[in-house]
Amino acid sequence: MKEYDCWFQKQTQAPCLSVPSLKRFFSAGAGMVYDHAIAEYRFLLKKCWDIPTEAVPDLRSAGTVLGLVADLNPLLPGKETLPAKIPAEGFYIRIGHEQSIIIAADEAGLLYGVYRFLALLMQGALKPGDEIQEAPTARLRMLNHWDNLDGSIERGYAGRSLFYQDNHLQYDKERMVAYARLAASVGINRISINNVNVRSAAKLLITEAYLPAVAELAAVFRPFGIRLLPALNFAAPKSIGGLSTADPLDPAVAAWWKEQISLVYRYIPDLAGFIVKADSEGESGPFQYGRTHAEGANMLAAALKPHGGELIWRCFVYNCQQDWRDHSMDRARAAYDNFIALDGQFADNVLLQIKYGPLDFQVLEPVMPLFGALKNTRYVMELQITQEYTGHQIDLCFLPWLWERIMAFDTAYGPQSRIRDLAGKSLEGFAAVANTGRDTNWTGHTLAQANLYGFGRMAWNPALESEAIAREWSALTFGPGHTAETIAGILLASYPAYENYNAPFGICFMVTPGIHYGPNIEGYEFSKWGTYHRADRKAIGVDRTSQGTGYTGLYAPENARRFEDPAQCPEKLLLFFHRLNYDYRMKNGETLLQNIYDTHFVGYDQVAVMVETWKSLENDLDGEVYDSVLSRFERQLENAREWRDQINTYFYRKTGIADARGRRIYD
Amino acid sequence: MKEYDCWFQKQTQAPCLSVPSLKRFFSAGAGMVYDHAIAEYRFLLKKCWDIPTEAVPDLRSAGTVLGLVADLNPLLPGKETLPAKIPAEGFYIRIGHEQSIIIAADEAGLLYGVYRFLALLMQGALKPGDEIQEAPTARLRMLNHWDNLDGSIERGYAGRSLFYQDNHLQYDKERMVAYARLAASVGINRISINNVNVRSAAKLLITEAYLPAVAELAAVFRPFGIRLLPALNFAAPKSIGGLSTADPLDPAVAAWWKEQISLVYRYIPDLAGFIVKADSEGESGPFQYGRTHAEGANMLAAALKPHGGELIWRCFVYNCQQDWRDHSMDRARAAYDNFIALDGQFADNVLLQIKYGPLDFQVLEPVMPLFGALKNTRYVMELQITQEYTGHQIDLCFLPWLWERIMAFDTAYGPQSRIRDLAGKSLEGFAAVANTGRDTNWTGHTLAQANLYGFGRMAWNPALESEAIAREWSALTFGPGHTAETIAGILLASYPAYENYNAPFGICFMVTPGIHYGPNIEGYEFSKWGTYHRADRKAIGVDRTSQGTGYTGLYAPENARRFEDPAQCPEKLLLFFHRLNYDYRMKNGETLLQNIYDTHFVGYDQVAVMVETWKSLENDLDGEVYDSVLSRFERQLENAREWRDQINTYFYRKTGIADARGRRIYD
Repeated sequence: MKEYDCWFQKQTQAPCLSVPSLKRFFSAGAGMVYDHAIAEYRFLLKKCWDIPTEAVPDLRSAGTVLGLVADLNPLLPGKETLPAKIPAEGFYIRIGHEQSIIIAADEAGLLYGVYRFLALLMQGALKPGDEIQEAPTARLRMLNHWDNLDGSIERGYAGRSLFYQDNHLQYDKERMVAYARLAASVGINRISINNVNVRSAAKLLITEAYLPAVAELAAVFRPFGIRLLPALNFAAPKSIGGLSTADPLDPAVAAWWKEQISLVYRYIPDLAGFIVKADSEGESGPFQYGRTHAEGANMLAAALKPHGGELIWRCFVYNCQQDWRDHSMDRARAAYDNFIALDGQFADNVLLQIKYGPLDFQVLEPVMPLFGALKNTRYVMELQITQEYTGHQIDLCFLPWLWERIMAFDTAYGPQSRIRDLAGKSLEGFAAVANTGRDTNWTGHTLAQANLYGFGRMAWNPALESEAIAREWSALTFGPGHTAETIAGILLASYPAYENYNAPFGICFMVTPGIHYGPNIEGYEFSKWGTYHRADRKAIGVDRTSQGTGYTGLYAPENARRFEDPAQCPEKLLLFFHRLNYDYRMKNGETLLQNIYDTHFVGYDQVAVMVETWKSLENDLDGEVYDSVLSRFERQLENAREWRDQINTYFYRKTGIADARGRRIYD
Repeated sequence: MKEYDCWFQKQTQAPCLSVPSLKRFFSAGAGMVYDHAIAEYRFLLKKCWDIPTEAVPDLRSAGTVLGLVADLNPLLPGKETLPAKIPAEGFYIRIGHEQSIIIAADEAGLLYGVYRFLALLMQGALKPGDEIQEAPTARLRMLNHWDNLDGSIERGYAGRSLFYQDNHLQYDKERMVAYARLAASVGINRISINNVNVRSAAKLLITEAYLPAVAELAAVFRPFGIRLLPALNFAAPKSIGGLSTADPLDPAVAAWWKEQISLVYRYIPDLAGFIVKADSEGESGPFQYGRTHAEGANMLAAALKPHGGELIWRCFVYNCQQDWRDHSMDRARAAYDNFIALDGQFADNVLLQIKYGPLDFQVLEPVMPLFGALKNTRYVMELQITQEYTGHQIDLCFLPWLWERIMAFDTAYGPQSRIRDLAGKSLEGFAAVANTGRDTNWTGHTLAQANLYGFGRMAWNPALESEAIAREWSALTFGPGHTAETIAGILLASYPAYENYNAPFGICFMVTPGIHYGPNIEGYEFSKWGTYHRADRKAIGVDRTSQGTGYTGLYAPENARRFEDPAQCPEKLLLFFHRLNYDYRMKNGETLLQNIYDTHFVGYDQVAVMVETWKSLENDLDGEVYDSVLSRFERQLENAREWRDQINTYFYRKTGIADARGRRIYD
């Protein structure tokens, strides 16, 4: 396995379909992405199996037929057996004894069909008679890069930025193509290329100082069906336009944006639009001018409208100057309280981007109550692939395990109201903060490639199970077989282990302030960030029920009732919703305190098992991969030990109650 | 008052001696510093009172006579009334009706005499008949600058470095002269010019890349009697010499240093020597090679010896990779344990530089047990003017208040064993980390100028009381009178207030990790730095008695007994030495817990009073000074409030015991 190649490894086994049938292909269609789909078919067969391909002029003599419905159908014999309609970006694959078909209604669909065909081929999972018909559930599948133009990455754990260096767009073209391939192969169709905190030189990305270079970058991604979506600074009319205000209702401001955005579209006519973080953590926004977020967003959307662009407007808006003394304020309410009243007020090319949880990418938090509650607003969900709170790509944390549970969350707004049911309806897609950088293996921790892969797969199909994704990725990356199965098992064990040794039962932010790696139990306890657990000698947690901050009441009635009652509340989230005494009895009959001790002893042990399992693969793995992952596992074990002991000691010091099973808790 | 001028303000009152007597002077002596002493007399009379001076050829017609004993005595009538002997760097001043005399045995003494004469003149404190005879108690009075060559300052709170910019020595020459004047005027005679953590370009200060510029800087300070003392990197033979080792017993290493140090002396023949931080917080040192610190220091000292240089070797050596679970290790013991066995092994041009306390410049910690215990080793004491743990020059904290208490500490090694008694004997001087930078007012907080002033005064005379220093500095800075008296009162109230709202009773390191400003009660509790308080629901503190880590036993028997017994231990340091239950009864009959609450309520109130007192001066002060100090006071009040509430809440949560006086403690 070569780390750089991710899920496009050189194969050691012959393909499961006959080589001549793969070699001789016929294609029909036209367009840049269509051409590229054919080129990718040829490039990857050569790269992965060293199979040179040959375009044959006669469809009947081809082993593989690829193309667009409109162009192929007139030529295909037996076309009545094809699906009547293939949806946008979807494809249909049929494996025959003599001939296989990959067909799509549009160019992107063909590209995705080619990638799926090849992925299945690598997994040895194709045989004559197979039919695969797929289309993405959600229209928008986006990577958000929080890269700064100086080359640093906010919350990046895989080296410097893929895009920037020394305030220039500067990258290895071949590597960028490889990145576009990785992204497109799992269905990504939008990439935002700069930090949503738009500072310093990044403000100038939408000016002629950078536009020629941004246009070049857009050209790298274009054949892969990926469109750019830069982040805007709401205060740009002031900082780069020289106006005295950025008030969205000021006609001069609107005119400036219209002009500036037109300029951007002259360079990049197919730009997807922009993403904006406004009134958040120090960023400028409409609140500064006494305007609503709808007023702010709609003004920008109007400037985008003539160009067909969309505005992605983030909902991560909360008071980050809270007073810990004030128990009445609850940051968890913020996005809901700020946006629910605006439902129906956003222009039709605005999409809200809503973090999956009400706080901030915590290890255990409930799904944000805005999902399902917004009735007349388009929106996408924001996830985080980069492991800000989940171990910095030092600790292994297979995130599709979490995402599967998010997708399965039932918002309880009528039937078919799970997140995965909303996808493709009001929930028009998924964005995720990328975990990639210039490290050779792209993601710092080689196994964290599975998170990038998994996000794409799950954004494409939110009904996918994490177990399937783990097996699929492992087979593609390490080749099908025992090693891949073992690694899939490690992946699937990793999130539950991380949950266990991390902050207990939905308590959030017990991490090192700023850095967000490693335990710091009171690190955020007296800060201005609205992140408190208020542990005392008897109890812990914030009462978010109707007796407390009323947060539970923001959910649909059925969920509100469930979360309101500790006995019905999912236990993993118990302390997110409730303030409870340490002697509260949990479902297993043990006290809350004992459950805290138990999960932390268990979590550490689970990591130890993961490490041993990894060691069992030493002879099966490339030495470099084995060593680099092992060294991270060793750091993870040390981290898990700190979490276990600091958490247990903290509560032991507070309560004086020893572990019921007599395990060592330090004093 | 002009901030930049510090204690050399333009005077608004006529001098208390007659102007003609000041104007017409006669001088005798020779030498660069002598010349400069005369020049300073003339420069400052002009600057402060606009009095032009005139050298008269005939001693009898002079109003003021200045000079060196050897040159003046033959000329002076009534010389038998002069002191028989004036010590090194000392001076004798006599104010006559017709003629005043400033005389010294050496050039530096004359310079100090001139400065004292003028300072007393500014205070209106000279009258005919007065005689002042002074000499510094301690030979070495040093400022340590922790400046990096990139212009940043480790623990600097007054702007960028006075010395460096962009990896060059780059400074305003006039300002550097003003700085040398400030330093010399309070008796400073050594300045180390770079961070003791010698990183990056700073390693090259001793090479020809920088030596011409360092020599130029030395030339600025030379006329002021101040000699440079750069910080060395112990690993320089490897990092800049290209050797494979820095082992102090390797002949090639010793030879390299000899050569390199000779080179430095070719550029700066009067260099005072070097300062070294070795085996400390990641810095290289002899331990790496299995050598003792005596072996490491003596090798460098041998290279300095032929040039008359001295080596200052820091004792801040401890394990910074501690495990919080391990109660047997005690960082407070480290310097003693590392150095006591080496007593008598250091070369005669080595001086140990020992921090005043066993930890690290904490607000309340005992005096380091090495003082008085080292019998055959030369040493100096290290203080910190820059307010690392004492409020970052945002909070007002008049440090001479602390230093007075350190100087008065009795090591109990025989009679006359207070720190101030040891000064001038085994304790050969004082070093302090400087608080100055490029801010116009030099020290960030204008009133923090008093700390720079106070350090010089106290290093000169460790028996000085902080009250006298506060009055003196205030009078010089604001002019004698009500305003100065009020400000002196604020200064004197500031340290007790800071103590009160900070970590209680000698508990250390309850500060924001890394930054060291503001409370973070468990911020260092689980770190590797050896900084624990181990508070649980019943008790707090580290047992450093003979039952615990044995730290008390490192003191002379009388002190050991005193610290060992909570009833005899100074209460302010109670929790430094003892682990005590919250219900421990203190001398005032209240519990420890209630005392914690009380001091914190009081501390905040004391700051509030300071702020009100400052506001009462609004009409008496320059607006810029008033506003800048007021804005810092407002931040201090906010900081004190956080300290008060976080500390009180922390202990309230742990104990569930409310304040006995019913004041509000947040839950």
